[in-house]
Amino acid sequence: MKLTKHLRTRMVLLVLGTGLFYTALAAMSGEAPVGVVSDSRGNTAGLAEGETPWWPSRYGADDQIGSLNEITPEVTRAACALVRHGRVVDLGRILDEDTPKFPGRYWHQTLDVTPHYENLRRTDSGGQGWGKNQINWITEIQAGTFQVGTQLDSIGHIQSGERFYNGWTTRDLVQSNGLARFGMETVPPVITRGVLLDVAAYKNVARLPAGYVITREDVDGTLKHEGLALRAGDAVLFHTGWGGLWGDDNAQFLSGEPGPGLATVQWLYDQHIAITGADTWSYGPVPGEDPERPFLVPQTMYVKLGLFGLENLTTEQLARDGVHEFLFVLTHARTRGSTAAVVAPAALY
Amino acid sequence: MKLTKHLRTRMVLLVLGTGLFYTALAAMSGEAPVGVVSDSRGNTAGLAEGETPWWPSRYGADDQIGSLNEITPEVTRAACALVRHGRVVDLGRILDEDTPKFPGRYWHQTLDVTPHYENLRRTDSGGQGWGKNQINWITEIQAGTFQVGTQLDSIGHIQSGERFYNGWTTRDLVQSNGLARFGMETVPPVITRGVLLDVAAYKNVARLPAGYVITREDVDGTLKHEGLALRAGDAVLFHTGWGGLWGDDNAQFLSGEPGPGLATVQWLYDQHIAITGADTWSYGPVPGEDPERPFLVPQTMYVKLGLFGLENLTTEQLARDGVHEFLFVLTHARTRGSTAAVVAPAALY
Amino acid sequence: MKLTKHLRTRMVLLVLGTGLFYTALAAMSGEAPVGVVSDSRGNTAGLAEGETPWWPSRYGADDQIGSLNEITPEVTRAACALVRHGRVVDLGRILDEDTPKFPGRYWHQTLDVTPHYENLRRTDSGGQGWGKNQINWITEIQAGTFQVGTQLDSIGHIQSGERFYNGWTTRDLVQSNGLARFGMETVPPVITRGVLLDVAAYKNVARLPAGYVITREDVDGTLKHEGLALRAGDAVLFHTGWGGLWGDDNAQFLSGEPGPGLATVQWLYDQHIAITGADTWSYGPVPGEDPERPFLVPQTMYVKLGLFGLENLTTEQLARDGVHEFLFVLTHARTRGSTAAVVAPAALY
Amino acid sequence: MKLTKHLRTRMVLLVLGTGLFYTALAAMSGEAPVGVVSDSRGNTAGLAEGETPWWPSRYGADDQIGSLNEITPEVTRAACALVRHGRVVDLGRILDEDTPKFPGRYWHQTLDVTPHYENLRRTDSGGQGWGKNQINWITEIQAGTFQVGTQLDSIGHIQSGERFYNGWTTRDLVQSNGLARFGMETVPPVITRGVLLDVAAYKNVARLPAGYVITREDVDGTLKHEGLALRAGDAVLFHTGWGGLWGDDNAQFLSGEPGPGLATVQWLYDQHIAITGADTWSYGPVPGEDPERPFLVPQTMYVKLGLFGLENLTTEQLARDGVHEFLFVLTHARTRGSTAAVVAPAALY
Repeated sequence: MKLTKHLRTRMVLLVLGTGLFYTALAAMSGEAPVGVVSDSRGNTAGLAEGETPWWPSRYGADDQIGSLNEITPEVTRAACALVRHGRVVDLGRILDEDTPKFPGRYWHQTLDVTPHYENLRRTDSGGQGWGKNQINWITEIQAGTFQVGTQLDSIGHIQSGERFYNGWTTRDLVQSNGLARFGMETVPPVITRGVLLDVAAYKNVARLPAGYVITREDVDGTLKHEGLALRAGDAVLFHTGWGGLWGDDNAQFLSGEPGPGLATVQWLYDQHIAITGADTWSYGPVPGEDPERPFLVPQTMYVKLGLFGLENLTTEQLARDGVHEFLFVLTHARTRGSTAAVVAPAALY
Repeated sequence: MKLTKHLRTRMVLLVLGTGLFYTALAAMSGEAPVGVVSDSRGNTAGLAEGETPWWPSRYGADDQIGSLNEITPEVTRAACALVRHGRVVDLGRILDEDTPKFPGRYWHQTLDVTPHYENLRRTDSGGQGWGKNQINWITEIQAGTFQVGTQLDSIGHIQSGERFYNGWTTRDLVQSNGLARFGMETVPPVITRGVLLDVAAYKNVARLPAGYVITREDVDGTLKHEGLALRAGDAVLFHTGWGGLWGDDNAQFLSGEPGPGLATVQWLYDQHIAITGADTWSYGPVPGEDPERPFLVPQTMYVKLGLFGLENLTTEQLARDGVHEFLFVLTHARTRGSTAAVVAPAALY
Repeated sequence: MKLTKHLRTRMVLLVLGTGLFYTALAAMSGEAPVGVVSDSRGNTAGLAEGETPWWPSRYGADDQIGSLNEITPEVTRAACALVRHGRVVDLGRILDEDTPKFPGRYWHQTLDVTPHYENLRRTDSGGQGWGKNQINWITEIQAGTFQVGTQLDSIGHIQSGERFYNGWTTRDLVQSNGLARFGMETVPPVITRGVLLDVAAYKNVARLPAGYVITREDVDGTLKHEGLALRAGDAVLFHTGWGGLWGDDNAQFLSGEPGPGLATVQWLYDQHIAITGADTWSYGPVPGEDPERPFLVPQTMYVKLGLFGLENLTTEQLARDGVHEFLFVLTHARTRGSTAAVVAPAALY
Repeated sequence: MKLTKHLRTRMVLLVLGTGLFYTALAAMSGEAPVGVVSDSRGNTAGLAEGETPWWPSRYGADDQIGSLNEITPEVTRAACALVRHGRVVDLGRILDEDTPKFPGRYWHQTLDVTPHYENLRRTDSGGQGWGKNQINWITEIQAGTFQVGTQLDSIGHIQSGERFYNGWTTRDLVQSNGLARFGMETVPPVITRGVLLDVAAYKNVARLPAGYVITREDVDGTLKHEGLALRAGDAVLFHTGWGGLWGDDNAQFLSGEPGPGLATVQWLYDQHIAITGADTWSYGPVPGEDPERPFLVPQTMYVKLGLFGLENLTTEQLARDGVHEFLFVLTHARTRGSTAAVVAPAALY
């Protein structure tokens, strides 16, 4: 009881101190300085050569969820009706510190087993844990980024110069703890029809080569081959075969990738699809179509179109089983201001 | 190009060094010492007073997913058929460093904006980013535990003394980087029928009080009131009203909670449900039914029964709208060896 | 042995992958893009109103250690000769997650006890650890910033707009892993004469009030009172009494502080001192002398003068014992690119 | 101002919540359970085969600083008198994420540049920073362990089974946030005479081989060769030449090391030295003298003798310049409960 009181007092003091400090900081200026909103959408500073303002977006000047607006209740309802067998396929890879990562990114986890020692010295310890039920627990300490493994990117992850989707700038949105807009807490669950475009099968190869540009014709051909047509609100997943290198030859896996070209993605956007993804570590061909414009495909998707993307999907099982149409479900951690979430979507059919 | 070569050489050397080191460590003993499997299921050391072995589990001695075995394809198929309107309700809370947490747990995120500076000095910089498309990106550094916010626990999170579900011990399963069994990578997507037991409405209160024990009779009464019956494979979610304190009075929120009692949970297990959760920071009443046995309900669920649990659900909207039966979908990050995942399940109807 | 080989193979592949990736990235542009040096010292973009270029510094255009250049071998030799009794006083505070911090900064540590479990299942385990000697070990996982507790700042910690000391800009120096210049690895051990200016004693108060500006006259009077004169290379430490609030009233402690005014610091620089510090969380009065120019004193010190500073010193014991002249010793972690080091200097006399 | 008030209110509530929670936890048992001290020194459970109690230590049953007790004021005073030229040699290596590390340990740092964006949108922004002085700052987020690079170990880092120095056990000392005893906050500054034993020069080799056992005779011969004799309180540093591999051949560096044998260390302890270290990643030969007892030398030093050790020293310059006697100074971060500190000691002569 004594400790409890001490702890509470200490913490209240600490907190008051922080409050006083903020007051002091505020007092240095004429008005409260923190939390003021900046809005750079009214100017066009810093556009790249040849670039014109791409905002406001198709979904409105204040929109934060871009293409996910296409998933209406009717789209979701119809997608759920696709489930005939109740089979579930996991589309996410296991993430640990050894999985291939974009250079510079990391992910470390360490178990915290200290409660197994702390609980032993409680006066009400049961001998091997807390209480007569000897309860103990284990947690973990994790450090790294969410931009690893199978991931759902926020459309705020990429910029053109200092500009985001809908014309916001870094000055407007960057806060130490997270993005003021486009954080993962704004991204709703994604539950819609999924379509697997098995371009590898259509091209009759195990794996498309690095830098291969998936064209509009490839998409048309694959859809025809699969007997499907795209609809507004679809989740369009590409099986390129490139994901087969994951774990088997990480060197090769990270050295490049095939992917939809810029015109293909523009066409997908015109079809009003909700989200697209692939079995590759980025999205779009690497090396890209234009050697002077690196990663132009995801940049266009996120910044210009507000089209959501998924990376490092495990599409192998769907491809092997010939499942091209399914219910796509994706729920994710709602961490405030994050640029991505580590995910594992599921396909149901 | 020169740098690339240097980097590669440096890293290969580092890696070889590690390999040689492991070889050296191995050479100190008669045989390869690392990675040897320990299996303590054959003994019964350290059981609490009055405790008898609870293993092997109902799902087999090598089972890792406990009650989630109840979700058969038929269960999933039938659940998907419940979606009549395509409406989606998010059941997860937003997580940041200020959300209420169990004492000692933390969660910090800092945006990494350094690419906005690094890309400017590339020889192929477009002036405000890399390339003529001036691409830039932002990631985040996150540090903390997954045992925060709306979370799906691994059944490996809790122990009785040194024992886990199915009789494994810490000696068997604790590795620095994660649990050797029961890590989140073993937990499949959870897609099944959801049932909301709005006990608060049944008892005609806004919020059940801290320490309130939800009894078998409360569950029967609520089900009758809602016109439902439980089935094998269900996700059974309790609306106690306690979650209304989140964000409004975190002090009160963390000071205790109502929850299903031990007999209720045992009965749920007997109904072969797949998972259960509530709008509270733990699961089960706090203070508990037996003052000498803290957190006995989740301990029994995870360690003895292998019954999965969810914490900090946002059940308010379902309760308000009177939605008691729905498709429950939960996909989560497959991080290897983790004791939990931060999640945001969805309800569809 | 088998595992060792597997591990080595896996890691080599991972590394090769990274190398190939860098090659691929490089191939996207005409020349190797990474690691190119940027140098903005030749322009004067972005200076604040009324500001003129302050570079090159007194110590040269390529200098990285500013005022620490003043510590010559002769200065160090003479300072060592001051030690008559061999008494050592620790000038650093204990750091943990509860110590007062600048808003938004954090520091968390968790013990890693997992080896106590891992070592038990080695085939050559001694029963309670590895080998017949039963060796076990414990480490820690730490997350946070070095800008906490008793700290030695790098002069790269603060900027004026985008400019650093000697005219470098963020574009020149910001790399994801650390500053390309001015990181803590460039800061030498600091071993010189220490002078404690006990201004509180001189002013006959226990503690100078928040916002109190220590003037040139205060310094003169205190030096006279202590019978000392400053010399080139000195470490000049201020005892304001404000540090007495640490731990006792953290609220008050963080709400402001007394400190040397701008003219005082300019005069200290003119005396060619090597470093200065105080028993306060920043350095210089808060609120400051000019309400429109927050933290102008440390900004001027680091950015314009290259004068090193120390924060949160524990000067109480020296003040109490009337020790005003001593050997000052400070060695610190050489972490590459860091903006500060958590330290605990010592005074010897 | 409004925000400030909101922040303060929110945080007070959060804190009160934590207090209430602790109260609730306490209320579950008959008495306050947290913080109770455990003391296992009175029993001898778990000793290894052939092991007898090694406690109380030479420095008393409650001692925490072991051999550092040998550094008396007179020792320090005499050591300071050794400085004739004022020359300073840095004995620490630069630490970053690529430096060689014991398997499983990591160290990541990311610059936090977000204030450069946040300060721009204050109402009192100067255009490129906060205020008319346009102040900005940069910090870092660091994650990893202190058991890396040039390090000073706490004697609490290693155990024999569950036992520490002076007979304490993990049950007594392990707390989630740090060791209850032997944390780095208990370790005083180390300022004493340093002696470099250049065994490589004595043996007339550039580098002693891995596994080489430095014997008592080697030490005698080297001392005679250098014209020195050990004294109580000395810091005894070994130059084996092994450190020359650091950065040049990390693979070889980590694959083993030469070092003082068990009898040598026991003899050093008998001479009442204060601390010892080497230019190797651990201390003592690897592979060791007894293949069944890994890392027996540091285990004996820390657990049985309370003799402090230093790793990864850069002794090259002292060896090259033939400096064998000097003032050794080491100040370090006082982080509570840590098992080590990343350091960079200095030699003065």
